[in-house]
Amino acid sequence: MATAQSSPPPVTDERSTEVVSGPSAGVKYAAEAIGTFFLVFTVGAAVGTDSHLAPLAIGAVLMVMVYAGGHISGGHYNPAVTLSVLVRRRIAVGNAFMYWIVQLGAGLLAAAVVSGIVDPSQAAKTVTMPLTGHALVAAFVAELLFTFALCYVVLNVATSKSHPDNSYFGLAIGFTVLAGAVAVGAISGGAFNPAVAIGIGLMKLVNFSQLWIHLVADFAGGAVAGVVFKQINPEDR
Amino acid sequence: MATAQSSPPPVTDERSTEVVSGPSAGVKYAAEAIGTFFLVFTVGAAVGTDSHLAPLAIGAVLMVMVYAGGHISGGHYNPAVTLSVLVRRRIAVGNAFMYWIVQLGAGLLAAAVVSGIVDPSQAAKTVTMPLTGHALVAAFVAELLFTFALCYVVLNVATSKSHPDNSYFGLAIGFTVLAGAVAVGAISGGAFNPAVAIGIGLMKLVNFSQLWIHLVADFAGGAVAGVVFKQINPEDR
Amino acid sequence: MATAQSSPPPVTDERSTEVVSGPSAGVKYAAEAIGTFFLVFTVGAAVGTDSHLAPLAIGAVLMVMVYAGGHISGGHYNPAVTLSVLVRRRIAVGNAFMYWIVQLGAGLLAAAVVSGIVDPSQAAKTVTMPLTGHALVAAFVAELLFTFALCYVVLNVATSKSHPDNSYFGLAIGFTVLAGAVAVGAISGGAFNPAVAIGIGLMKLVNFSQLWIHLVADFAGGAVAGVVFKQINPEDR
Amino acid sequence: MATAQSSPPPVTDERSTEVVSGPSAGVKYAAEAIGTFFLVFTVGAAVGTDSHLAPLAIGAVLMVMVYAGGHISGGHYNPAVTLSVLVRRRIAVGNAFMYWIVQLGAGLLAAAVVSGIVDPSQAAKTVTMPLTGHALVAAFVAELLFTFALCYVVLNVATSKSHPDNSYFGLAIGFTVLAGAVAVGAISGGAFNPAVAIGIGLMKLVNFSQLWIHLVADFAGGAVAGVVFKQINPEDR
Repeated sequence: MATAQSSPPPVTDERSTEVVSGPSAGVKYAAEAIGTFFLVFTVGAAVGTDSHLAPLAIGAVLMVMVYAGGHISGGHYNPAVTLSVLVRRRIAVGNAFMYWIVQLGAGLLAAAVVSGIVDPSQAAKTVTMPLTGHALVAAFVAELLFTFALCYVVLNVATSKSHPDNSYFGLAIGFTVLAGAVAVGAISGGAFNPAVAIGIGLMKLVNFSQLWIHLVADFAGGAVAGVVFKQINPEDR
Repeated sequence: MATAQSSPPPVTDERSTEVVSGPSAGVKYAAEAIGTFFLVFTVGAAVGTDSHLAPLAIGAVLMVMVYAGGHISGGHYNPAVTLSVLVRRRIAVGNAFMYWIVQLGAGLLAAAVVSGIVDPSQAAKTVTMPLTGHALVAAFVAELLFTFALCYVVLNVATSKSHPDNSYFGLAIGFTVLAGAVAVGAISGGAFNPAVAIGIGLMKLVNFSQLWIHLVADFAGGAVAGVVFKQINPEDR
Repeated sequence: MATAQSSPPPVTDERSTEVVSGPSAGVKYAAEAIGTFFLVFTVGAAVGTDSHLAPLAIGAVLMVMVYAGGHISGGHYNPAVTLSVLVRRRIAVGNAFMYWIVQLGAGLLAAAVVSGIVDPSQAAKTVTMPLTGHALVAAFVAELLFTFALCYVVLNVATSKSHPDNSYFGLAIGFTVLAGAVAVGAISGGAFNPAVAIGIGLMKLVNFSQLWIHLVADFAGGAVAGVVFKQINPEDR
Repeated sequence: MATAQSSPPPVTDERSTEVVSGPSAGVKYAAEAIGTFFLVFTVGAAVGTDSHLAPLAIGAVLMVMVYAGGHISGGHYNPAVTLSVLVRRRIAVGNAFMYWIVQLGAGLLAAAVVSGIVDPSQAAKTVTMPLTGHALVAAFVAELLFTFALCYVVLNVATSKSHPDNSYFGLAIGFTVLAGAVAVGAISGGAFNPAVAIGIGLMKLVNFSQLWIHLVADFAGGAVAGVVFKQINPEDR
């Protein structure tokens, strides 16, 4: 029974529109906006109030929003994830473009709200000096690697036909970001997500003039993950 | 198999009474009281003994009580969640009213027990000066946003027909509160639950005279979540 | 499929012997010994080396051992849990008695190993002064409440017929102890388990002469949980 | 439904080749390399940047890679786990040998990348003095015990026929390493994995000249776990 009316693999939106009507486009954008808003808001508020459990909160909020919105929008909340799903051909180009706009808009709104409610006196005195030389390369590599890991996990746990209707997809996706934030947060800022990167750039938690590091590395990581997924799952099209 | 005799979506209590007899009202109130008691007790004891892992304990206890009592009462443990379930029409008005009374009573009892067993000398010296101006608005917004997030997650993971019998509903619900406690605990106290707010007000962990912030913001967040759920799940009635 | 040959609810051992042969008694005792050993060993080593994440490690090891051994022994690892399962009539008296002996023996062995490998110079200088008056009552109440919570969660997630074959039973059980260790660890030592209490008593992490607090409170909590479960699940016999 | 085309128990690769074609050998090695790389990379980066949540990140990354790659390679990422699966006869000798080579190569690559991007000035000043006498025995025992626990958990949650298609296998496996890292990290370094041990030896997080401790203890723990699994699951061949 669970099967007949069950959700499609959460990050895909194409299959559902083929089989039955599925959520309308507007509804998907709303779910995508809500999830991205809370992800960027939590990053900003947890880091801005200097919480020592910030990486856990960030992984947790991504997890819960994937569980809550996955059955509606697929639960990307991340332009790099949307790109990897596009490479894996589980979202149409036009729809992906709209997802990017919605994710960016939700991230900007979250950054504005955080700026409005976090007391500057309790915000972390983040050093956002421009990175140079070795540190810049290190940040780029760290972002690239963990964004690849995130998209690789997303594609395997939420779009593979090997384990439909599993209950762990959100846990796996959220805790990949948790692991990355702890492992390389001190090296790259740990965005792994262009919408998060722009948000924390506006909140001055990373250096805004070097946002290109995150944008280039994150999209590259997502694209590579899409290609790798198809290579190691040759029969899953 | 699992389906024939399986539990209804955990936070709803209407469907079960339609299909089979289901738990009696008294049994539901007992389960709701136990869960709310341990939630408020854990908040008070963990914060009162200054544990640096308090947000994790709070998210964990909510999660385990949702898993333990969900099949009996729906596992709300939170008047704002009950309101959102009422807006989504998965609980009757009279029953919701009884849930509120039970939740409030359990929260008061937990606050009394905490006051009795936590050694004042080890309790955190919480600053509960009245919030004014900007800080007051920030607390209101933070409470409103994360209570909305909590109820949005509850309705989607535990009452949606898209994924019945999933195993992640408790994890998602508990870890939403964990994320919120870490992200905005320093801004609003992080209740997201009127029963918790009254409990921590009595324990002097937040300023009692400003409890209206939590009450208004939390119920508003729950009501909005109910409306949003229905908008983005138009076919799920 | 999963159902026909699937595991019985993990903490029960009676049903399996009725349906098919099931694990032999010796095999059950072995699994129970392994799980209890690692639980007590982790408590001792994590607390003894002063790890600030000790509560998380303790909850995690209980969770993983419940998942690993639940299909064999039921995964009690705790005499108070075994008592609650006895009250709920999912284990025979003679078998429960053997479980208690095995759990105690495994706990003693773990305490001995910890004493052998933890460097005294890095062990926490635990103050194990005898508790008196108010502090003694507080410790008793804290132990009683959270042992009740643990057994209440165990019975509901692992023996209820409402959700067979769920994937969250271990997570719920382990994280109840995590929540309790964070919330009342500073008040009672946070054993919630007579085998753990004796182990940490021998390791001098709690005052050995006051072990009766844990023994009486923990068994009382387990017994009450068994009675409460039956009251609120009247049709589940 | 889920069953007909569902994944085999994740750490086995033999059954799938019997039933249907399954992933090719090259694809399995690729998945095993990716997972081992990110495990060793996270260990090195999290410990090297002195993150206080390092054990959580390490447990999390193992968990997510088991969930992501389990349906392809079985998700070992650990030569000791591969040995235990070999003892349990769920992988062929030649294939196990290839897994070891791939795991070692991925671990070396991860160590090289970490050495390239972690700023030495922020790296922990790890004391890697040679262990002697009591401390050496303690490290050996700690490694042996928790590698046994890890392989015991893996075999029971991911290869037992008692609970196919469960959703908790990755959570149980990852959080065993989390528990071990917190409990005995200060005693043995907490590798529980020869590929990790070699990686952190090269990164100078443990004393390289004493790597034999990890290699001997970890393989011994894996072999013993394989034997114990077969003893306590006599009908599961």
